[in-house]
Amino acid sequence: MKNKLSSTVILTGIILLLAATLVATFAYLGNQKPQTRGIAPLIDIAALEPDSSLWGQNFPNQYSTYLQTLTNNARTNYGGSEPFSKLEADPRLVQLFAGYGFSKDYNEERGHANALTDVQATLRVNEKTPGTCYSCKAATNPKLWNEMGLETFDSTPFADMTQHMTDPIGCANCHDAETMELVVTNPSLDIALKAQGIDWTTLSRQEMRTLVCANCHVEYYFAGDQKILTFPWTGGTTIEAISQYYIDVGFKDWDHPESGAPMIKMQHPEYEFYTADSTHFNAGVACADCHMPYTRDGSAKFSNHNVQSPLLNAQAACGACHTDVDYVVDRVNIIQDTVWATMETTEDALVAAIDTIEAAAATPGVDETLLAEARDFHREAQLRWDFIAAENSMGFHNPEEALRILADAINLAYQGQLKALEAAGGTVDIQTSQQ
Amino acid sequence: MKNKLSSTVILTGIILLLAATLVATFAYLGNQKPQTRGIAPLIDIAALEPDSSLWGQNFPNQYSTYLQTLTNNARTNYGGSEPFSKLEADPRLVQLFAGYGFSKDYNEERGHANALTDVQATLRVNEKTPGTCYSCKAATNPKLWNEMGLETFDSTPFADMTQHMTDPIGCANCHDAETMELVVTNPSLDIALKAQGIDWTTLSRQEMRTLVCANCHVEYYFAGDQKILTFPWTGGTTIEAISQYYIDVGFKDWDHPESGAPMIKMQHPEYEFYTADSTHFNAGVACADCHMPYTRDGSAKFSNHNVQSPLLNAQAACGACHTDVDYVVDRVNIIQDTVWATMETTEDALVAAIDTIEAAAATPGVDETLLAEARDFHREAQLRWDFIAAENSMGFHNPEEALRILADAINLAYQGQLKALEAAGGTVDIQTSQQ
Repeated sequence: MKNKLSSTVILTGIILLLAATLVATFAYLGNQKPQTRGIAPLIDIAALEPDSSLWGQNFPNQYSTYLQTLTNNARTNYGGSEPFSKLEADPRLVQLFAGYGFSKDYNEERGHANALTDVQATLRVNEKTPGTCYSCKAATNPKLWNEMGLETFDSTPFADMTQHMTDPIGCANCHDAETMELVVTNPSLDIALKAQGIDWTTLSRQEMRTLVCANCHVEYYFAGDQKILTFPWTGGTTIEAISQYYIDVGFKDWDHPESGAPMIKMQHPEYEFYTADSTHFNAGVACADCHMPYTRDGSAKFSNHNVQSPLLNAQAACGACHTDVDYVVDRVNIIQDTVWATMETTEDALVAAIDTIEAAAATPGVDETLLAEARDFHREAQLRWDFIAAENSMGFHNPEEALRILADAINLAYQGQLKALEAAGGTVDIQTSQQ
Repeated sequence: MKNKLSSTVILTGIILLLAATLVATFAYLGNQKPQTRGIAPLIDIAALEPDSSLWGQNFPNQYSTYLQTLTNNARTNYGGSEPFSKLEADPRLVQLFAGYGFSKDYNEERGHANALTDVQATLRVNEKTPGTCYSCKAATNPKLWNEMGLETFDSTPFADMTQHMTDPIGCANCHDAETMELVVTNPSLDIALKAQGIDWTTLSRQEMRTLVCANCHVEYYFAGDQKILTFPWTGGTTIEAISQYYIDVGFKDWDHPESGAPMIKMQHPEYEFYTADSTHFNAGVACADCHMPYTRDGSAKFSNHNVQSPLLNAQAACGACHTDVDYVVDRVNIIQDTVWATMETTEDALVAAIDTIEAAAATPGVDETLLAEARDFHREAQLRWDFIAAENSMGFHNPEEALRILADAINLAYQGQLKALEAAGGTVDIQTSQQ
């Protein structure tokens, strides 16, 4: 008995000692400053170098995975990178975006390396399109912004900027060529952060692994005659703050030809939506953790630059934190199905609002004050819906926020319909659905 | 170098060996059948014994924590067990439940051991109240159901059943007195499960740690003249299936005096709501894991029978699985705030629907067919809202489902308002909110 006990004590002691040593070792290693590179670079990369293939000579794993974004055209239940037509998948969008380019051509985005090809092919570009539209499409931009300045870049016609667009989205959009550190390269992001008192150079690497995505994955508009790329973040980045910003500056993207409402098109507000107290963001998870999961090439660990839906790579993307990947993927599906069902309800309410406002406006003696209120409701409802519809996760990035915003959008759409009925004094057909 | 290498190899080997031994030991221990009791019982407990204090002699930890439910009157942001008036906290409820007992008296529930006291004090009980209302209030019930039968229990007047009600909710409601196993004691639950082909005796202990809560924490109604406690689960336990059930059997709890709609009051559908693909349920978490977290008394581990909001005991309740309890509590707060905001929007839409339907009904020449449709929309909207409002987690048990259902309720409430306007032919004031 005594022997048993003492051998247990000794064994336990050894275990504890070894465990403590391991913990201490990991703690030591964890506190070491990261080595920028294990191997000396093969070639020097010029500051703001647009050509990603040159960076690729020093970083073949990152570059070769980046090149996969040229052909990673896989589809998920609600997204992915196959360029299917969103207008064909959901014809209500044609009416919702009537009078605007997105009613003519609105495809799911392909991978990063196709950005230039695809922006040059879209029917949304015409002779009035400013250079601003290239802002998120090319690795040439950090150099061009540096040389031309933001104002000249943005106010030059799109067609005239094409000659400069030699390289699609690539290394220079997020990395410093000398240190390889993650950097804000888009001057509009830099301006928007400064306006909020945020100095991005003080942020941690993990924070930057989300913030660099905001170089592009944000809501923005083209301000003034120079069409300056501007983030509507002065009052914050929630949908309510963004809406209020546009009201305050009196901006609209277009007038809806049916309702007559001054509309805002939301772009791809992944950053704003994800950072609005989402469970993953609040837990310290960065965009890159899921969209660029760490991968091994022999002894080298690198982040996979084949940026894509984590659903196409769930074992690596979700499995780094979650032990049961099947459970997690099921969860994503449940969330996305729920958000999609609620989005459909919202779209039906928006269509009813548009039809009713259009009919009210055609009524002799319509109350123009009430009609203007109805139009404001249409705008506010649709920009909230679009915040979720244009955001590329079918709500998954922030499920509660998605459903909260859609519920608000449903409410506002019906308020618009009712206000239009009030404006017309009860002479207009009432749009209801069958139960 | 060689020495260093070989000592590393040896050390690593020892670590791996010890780790493997530990893993195997834990796996072995984990696979052992649980001992029902470590100590022989002090006294024998009769089958279906109502008196929890007798059970308490054998199980002092469980019993002493159970007794804490007498006085655990703490309030959380949206719930807890302080019996505050829900009608004072949110006066819209008075209108929503107009014509029904819940508009007169509707308090937050206190702990289990107060169930008998509180049901006898509520203003909702009157001379017509059937014995059924005691179904979820007393540990005497399993014995009474056995002796009297469900039909006699339910069809006896409440006042006449009072003499039998010696013991509030207690041990006998969930445990077999001989084996201490968790059991379904409510015959209505047994019937509802059988109708779905579920044999609860084949379920695992972990599954029973959720199912026994469904002895009471469910939506139910009183069927037929005998007022038989019945669970509306024939078509499933989602809100859509429950709504369809009530339509199919033609049941209503009351007529709303303002809208004239045939209404359903939802009770406390925690079981249905939680099991509708919630993230915790799908991950295998039982009700008892959070509401009755394991606790230690010296070497004895027992589940805490002071059943209460996990927010009042977050370190034990959430900390068993989540390392960062502060983060988790923040998350709960964000979810509940979001659900509450959406619930407020829903209530406003319901109030507008009720007012409009009431005005339409008073209009000469109103289209009665359309008016009936409007009333159906009111009923369907309000029962969905109430499914979330009466459920005791302010959406936390299943956040996406809560927000999905509330968004649907908003949609249906406005459909009811519009249908009433249509029925009245445009002669009724339109209820809109200010933007």
